[in-house]
Amino acid sequence: MAIDTTPRVAIGPAPDALLESAVVRGGGLISPIESADAVVWTGSPESFPTALPSTVRWVQLSSAGIEEWFGAGVIRSDTELVWTSAAGAFSATVAEHALMLLLAGVRHLPAHIEARTWRRAEFMPKIGTLRGATVGIIGAGGIGKALIPMLAAQGADSIAINRSGNPVPGAVETWPTTRVDELYSRADHFVIAAPATATTHHLIGRAQLAAMQPHSWVINVARGSLIDTDALVEAITEERIGGAGLDVTDPEPLPDGHPLWELTNAIITPHDSNPGAIRHAALAEHIGKNVERFARGETLAALVNPIAGY
Amino acid sequence: MAIDTTPRVAIGPAPDALLESAVVRGGGLISPIESADAVVWTGSPESFPTALPSTVRWVQLSSAGIEEWFGAGVIRSDTELVWTSAAGAFSATVAEHALMLLLAGVRHLPAHIEARTWRRAEFMPKIGTLRGATVGIIGAGGIGKALIPMLAAQGADSIAINRSGNPVPGAVETWPTTRVDELYSRADHFVIAAPATATTHHLIGRAQLAAMQPHSWVINVARGSLIDTDALVEAITEERIGGAGLDVTDPEPLPDGHPLWELTNAIITPHDSNPGAIRHAALAEHIGKNVERFARGETLAALVNPIAGY
Repeated sequence: MAIDTTPRVAIGPAPDALLESAVVRGGGLISPIESADAVVWTGSPESFPTALPSTVRWVQLSSAGIEEWFGAGVIRSDTELVWTSAAGAFSATVAEHALMLLLAGVRHLPAHIEARTWRRAEFMPKIGTLRGATVGIIGAGGIGKALIPMLAAQGADSIAINRSGNPVPGAVETWPTTRVDELYSRADHFVIAAPATATTHHLIGRAQLAAMQPHSWVINVARGSLIDTDALVEAITEERIGGAGLDVTDPEPLPDGHPLWELTNAIITPHDSNPGAIRHAALAEHIGKNVERFARGETLAALVNPIAGY
Repeated sequence: MAIDTTPRVAIGPAPDALLESAVVRGGGLISPIESADAVVWTGSPESFPTALPSTVRWVQLSSAGIEEWFGAGVIRSDTELVWTSAAGAFSATVAEHALMLLLAGVRHLPAHIEARTWRRAEFMPKIGTLRGATVGIIGAGGIGKALIPMLAAQGADSIAINRSGNPVPGAVETWPTTRVDELYSRADHFVIAAPATATTHHLIGRAQLAAMQPHSWVINVARGSLIDTDALVEAITEERIGGAGLDVTDPEPLPDGHPLWELTNAIITPHDSNPGAIRHAALAEHIGKNVERFARGETLAALVNPIAGY
């Protein structure tokens, strides 16, 4: 890509003050679409201009998943146009939520919050630490990769699980999914960040929970179906594991009266790890950095492959 | 210090399996005191041997504060003996606790833990993030310095406050204590880790709380007296700040029926950020690293200055 020190960037379909200031911070100029080098599009494929001016060389979309853009035939492989998605932009937010749940669990926070009296002697022996702990990260995609340096800063080691077993940066070990059942007796805690597929349904069931340690916490920021909820309730009730931090549940929404609501060591957050205001800020940061790369002629982040279709 | 590849280390007054294995991992040999190069002492000054064999060149103590060792006249400046304390060994544990309280506050965890129903729409707008936030660290000693890289891993900037204003590694800015009142309108959140002195009494009072933002959280892992509790209760009740995470309180222990117990956005942990089991593990890590340094002839961590008396 040619070096263009001050790219002209159009934002559509509606103006957006936060994204505009991100473009400017990234070294771009806000411009009408007619004279733009790049377009940031926060709308749907249906609302996208059918013909772009020939000056436009790059389109930045606002979501991480862009299946519908291929479905609508808007992203095509027969042009020079470069497309980028927001893939990865929201990973750090969900990773922050996962770390929060894990720290709160390990440090016995739920019972502290329920307390209405100074229970120091009772709580002291129950407080753990991530320092020196090993955390198994099941599904080391964007969220898992964002979580590893956060855990490292706490003095915790990560074992990453991914399909290939190809080393994930920062993890002390990376294992292929075929070895995942060895993880449950090896790691102290577990963060589930894998996609929901037929293979990952009830990935954490009775056998896996039985292999864990009495202090182990299980954090799920992926999809509820990856855990056998009944088996989890049993393991927590019988104090066979430390507890669970769940941003996703099965069933979801978790119905009133469900036993998970009453368990002190089950922390439920109602699928709110990535709320709108934070998404918007994260998108702005992502766009600002991509404008900076575009201005410098560098490779953009979250490039879409128009031929492969993702 | 001469290079000694396999130092003989005595542990006293009682054997300690965790510290023994740390010594061995650090490259040392467990030895009786009569033939030791170094002594790790977990007892009081009163129990310390009145005469050490001449082979002993280094004594490692087990606490961070060692005033009583000077008071008892055991550490003297007229010998070649090198003394080290455990200063800094426990900082990371307390910093972890501070980060946990801050993340739990910013992400609105207390209300989540009290919930018995799926309150997604209500919670979503209340959830914040440390990403892009600025955290003021009031008192950047061992705990503050340990906290800064943890915050950096979350994408948060730190402004450190110390007496001199000399730059603290990792902080985006360091200000002297004389400027601390500028901090409250500048930072998003505040972690108090300063010593309790006449000057720091009620450091956070009505005026400071009034300067903070409605989303600001105040974390106290130092001493309860640094915050004016009545002013804090008012600010939280009137939702003028986000909330407070308090490992220390004034009065302490916090009496039953105190208004702080009933405030959802006041998280109370009963001065349990550094419990015994974690202290012991942290001490073992500290000792292991010092044995490694001793074996390599390197400068030891937490050296005591026998002339200055600390």
